[in-house]
Amino acid sequence: MAADFEILAVDSGSMARAGVLRVAHGEIRTPAFVPLATKGSVRGLTPAEVRDLGFDMVLGNTFHLHLNPGDERIAGQGGLHSFMRWDGPIITDSGGFQVFSMGHGTVADEIKGRAPNGPGRSGSVRAIEEEGVRYRAYTDGSERFMAPETSMEIQANLGSDIALVFDECTPFHVSRDYTARSTERTHRWLDRCLDWHAEHGPAGQLVYGIVQGGVHEDLRVESAQAVAARACDGIAIGGSLGAEKEQMYEVVRWATAVLPPERPRHLLGIGEIDDLVAGVARGIDTFDCVMPTRLGRHGVALVPEPGRRWRIDLTAASLKDSDEPLMEGCPCPACAIGYSRSYLRYMAKARELTAMRLITVHNLAFVQRTVARLREAILAGTFEQVSAEILGGAAP
Amino acid sequence: MAADFEILAVDSGSMARAGVLRVAHGEIRTPAFVPLATKGSVRGLTPAEVRDLGFDMVLGNTFHLHLNPGDERIAGQGGLHSFMRWDGPIITDSGGFQVFSMGHGTVADEIKGRAPNGPGRSGSVRAIEEEGVRYRAYTDGSERFMAPETSMEIQANLGSDIALVFDECTPFHVSRDYTARSTERTHRWLDRCLDWHAEHGPAGQLVYGIVQGGVHEDLRVESAQAVAARACDGIAIGGSLGAEKEQMYEVVRWATAVLPPERPRHLLGIGEIDDLVAGVARGIDTFDCVMPTRLGRHGVALVPEPGRRWRIDLTAASLKDSDEPLMEGCPCPACAIGYSRSYLRYMAKARELTAMRLITVHNLAFVQRTVARLREAILAGTFEQVSAEILGGAAP
Repeated sequence: MAADFEILAVDSGSMARAGVLRVAHGEIRTPAFVPLATKGSVRGLTPAEVRDLGFDMVLGNTFHLHLNPGDERIAGQGGLHSFMRWDGPIITDSGGFQVFSMGHGTVADEIKGRAPNGPGRSGSVRAIEEEGVRYRAYTDGSERFMAPETSMEIQANLGSDIALVFDECTPFHVSRDYTARSTERTHRWLDRCLDWHAEHGPAGQLVYGIVQGGVHEDLRVESAQAVAARACDGIAIGGSLGAEKEQMYEVVRWATAVLPPERPRHLLGIGEIDDLVAGVARGIDTFDCVMPTRLGRHGVALVPEPGRRWRIDLTAASLKDSDEPLMEGCPCPACAIGYSRSYLRYMAKARELTAMRLITVHNLAFVQRTVARLREAILAGTFEQVSAEILGGAAP
Repeated sequence: MAADFEILAVDSGSMARAGVLRVAHGEIRTPAFVPLATKGSVRGLTPAEVRDLGFDMVLGNTFHLHLNPGDERIAGQGGLHSFMRWDGPIITDSGGFQVFSMGHGTVADEIKGRAPNGPGRSGSVRAIEEEGVRYRAYTDGSERFMAPETSMEIQANLGSDIALVFDECTPFHVSRDYTARSTERTHRWLDRCLDWHAEHGPAGQLVYGIVQGGVHEDLRVESAQAVAARACDGIAIGGSLGAEKEQMYEVVRWATAVLPPERPRHLLGIGEIDDLVAGVARGIDTFDCVMPTRLGRHGVALVPEPGRRWRIDLTAASLKDSDEPLMEGCPCPACAIGYSRSYLRYMAKARELTAMRLITVHNLAFVQRTVARLREAILAGTFEQVSAEILGGAAP
C-alpha cells in the first residue's frame, strides 16, 4: 500500500523533489511545512488565517489531545477536523515523542543532542516495557499506559488524515547498544500499529512508519529498510538526529538514500530555514516544527539574515526607538499593518496578545514562502540556485 | 468652545439621543462604545479587526503609556495613531483613575463601591497635594509626579483626538466632606488643564472635563454645573457611581439633567449591557469599559441572557461535551467559524491564545451590536421598545 503521492519533478543535482500528496481531506503541495496545532489550534490564529498563509496541513498532538480534552470527547464532537474547524489535512504524531521525553528529560534537549538534565530530574515515565509505556499523566497525576495499539486508537478517534506509528524516540545520550535494542522494539511496535490499523483504523487514514537508529549509520539504514519493508503509506524520520546540523543532515541522508522514492517522507520536529533547505535537498517532503510559532510567542521574528540564524529578537533594547519595519518589503499580513520595530518591541516586552499573534503570523508566512519558493525552484529546475540564494540571505 | 457634535434625534420619552461627533481623525456615531486599547492595542486584535467590528474610536491609557513605552517615545514615532496603526479617533483618559487607584486600593473595587482592601494594603501614591500627585512608578519603582499639566502634556505627546482632564477619582469609602473638598480641587485642576491646553495643546485636540461628586446629589449637580461653566468640548462623568446599579443610574441622571445638551457626554468605565441601555436613556453619548475584552481573556462570553448578567462562563465543566454553538445565530466573525462550546471550553481552560482572542471578538461584537441597535432605535423613534427588548434578553 502507498499513499496517493504524485512526484511532479525531481532535482537533477540533489534528492529534492516536488509533488502533491492527496489525503482524505485534500492535497498537500510538497515540499511542505506543517504548522503545529498541538492542542487543537495554531496558537493565536484562526483556521482561515492558517489556510490563507498557504498551509495545506497542520499537526495535532496525540498525547496532549488524549489527556485533554480527551480523544473520545473529540470523537463525540465529530473528530478533530470538526472540533477544531479545520477542514484540510491533519497529521497526528503518535505520542511517542511526548511520552518518552517525559522520561528522558525535556523534550527538545535530549532528542536534539543537548546536555542531559542529570540524575536529579525524574521524568514521569514509570516503565518502558515490551508491551508499551507506563507514565504518569501531567493533567491529573494518574498512572496510564500507552501501547502501540493505544496510540493508534487515539489517532483513530481523532480521525487524522495521517497517523504516525508509536515509536520509542531514542535519545542522544544512550549507548549504541541501547539504541539498537530500542530501534528493534520500535520495529516490532510498527508491526503492532499496522496490525491494529488494518483491523480497526478509519477508512482513508494513512499510516506513516518512523525510522529510528540514532546517529549510527548502520542502525539508521537498517531501520529505514525495516520500515520500508512494511506496508506504511509514508515514512517519517525521528529520534536523535545528532548534536550538530551537519550530523543531522548526514543522518537524514542515510535514511532517505535507502527509502523507496515513491513514498512520501516526513522529517519530525525540524524546521529552521537552513534545515528546510538541507532537508529538501536530501529528499524530505514534509516538515513540522514548533520554531516559527514558539519564537513568535516569545517576540522573536524571522528575517532574511543567515548570520543571525534568520532571527531578530524584537525584545532587544536596541530597538526601543527604531522606526524601521519588522522586515523591509515583507508581504505578510502582519507586516502589511505597518508597525515599527519600536512598537513591536514594546508590545512583545509587554507580552501583549496582538504582538504574539502578529509575530507568529509573520514567522509562519516567512517559513511558508521559503518552502513555496523551494517547491517552485524544483519545478523550474533552479533548486541549486534558489537554495544558495536562501542560504545567502535572500528574502523568501 | 464646543465639539462638532451633531444631534440627529432625541428620544421623546427619555434623554436618549443619537448623533455624530466629528473629531480630528474622523466621526463617531453616537451612542458609541469605545473599546480599550489600554497599552496601545485592543488586546489580541488588529486595528482593521476593531474597525470591521464597527467601532469608530478606541481609548488609550495615559498613565500606562506614559510609564511604558513613554509618551515622548510615542511622539517620536509620530504619535499614538501612527504608533498603534489606528487612523481613527482616539480618546485618552487622564491618568487620574490609575494614579489614584494605586492609592485607594485596586482599581475597580474602590471606585465601584465594593469593599476596601483594608489597612494592610499600601498603595503607591506617596502624596496627594494641591499641586498634583506623587506616586511610585510600577515599572521601575522611581518616584514620579503627575500634575494636571503633566497629564495634558502626555496627552499632547500622544496626540489623541480627545483628552480628558486630570481629576481626583474620588473613591466610595470616604466621607462626604472629603468628597466635597476633592471635587473642588478637581475643578481647580480642570482650570489648570484648560489653561495648559489653550497655550500648548495640539491643534484639533478636544478636551473633556470630568464631573465628580461621589454619590451626593448636591455635589454631583454642583460639579456638573462647574464643569459645564468651563470651555470644555465635552463632559465625562467619573468617580464613584455607587454600590448598586440603581444608585449609579441616579448619579448619572443628576449630572446629565443639568449638563448642556449640545455637548457630548462620556460615561467613564461603564459598559455592561443593562448599563449601556440605562446610560443612553439618561443622555450618555459614549462609554468605555474593560468588560468585553477582559471577560473574553478569561473565557467569559456575552450571551442574550439578562438573568445571567448576559454572561456565560465558557470554562464551566457543564460545557465539556456541549456541541451547541457559543450563541445561536450570532453573526460575529468568531461565531462564524462554528466552534462548539465544548471546543471553546477546552481552549479557554487551556488559556489558548486563539480562544482568548475569539471570545474577545465575540464580546466586542455583542456590545457593538447593542449600541448600534440603540442608535437605530433612537433614530427610528423606537427607543423605549428596543430598550425593553434588549433588557428582556433579545439578541442584539
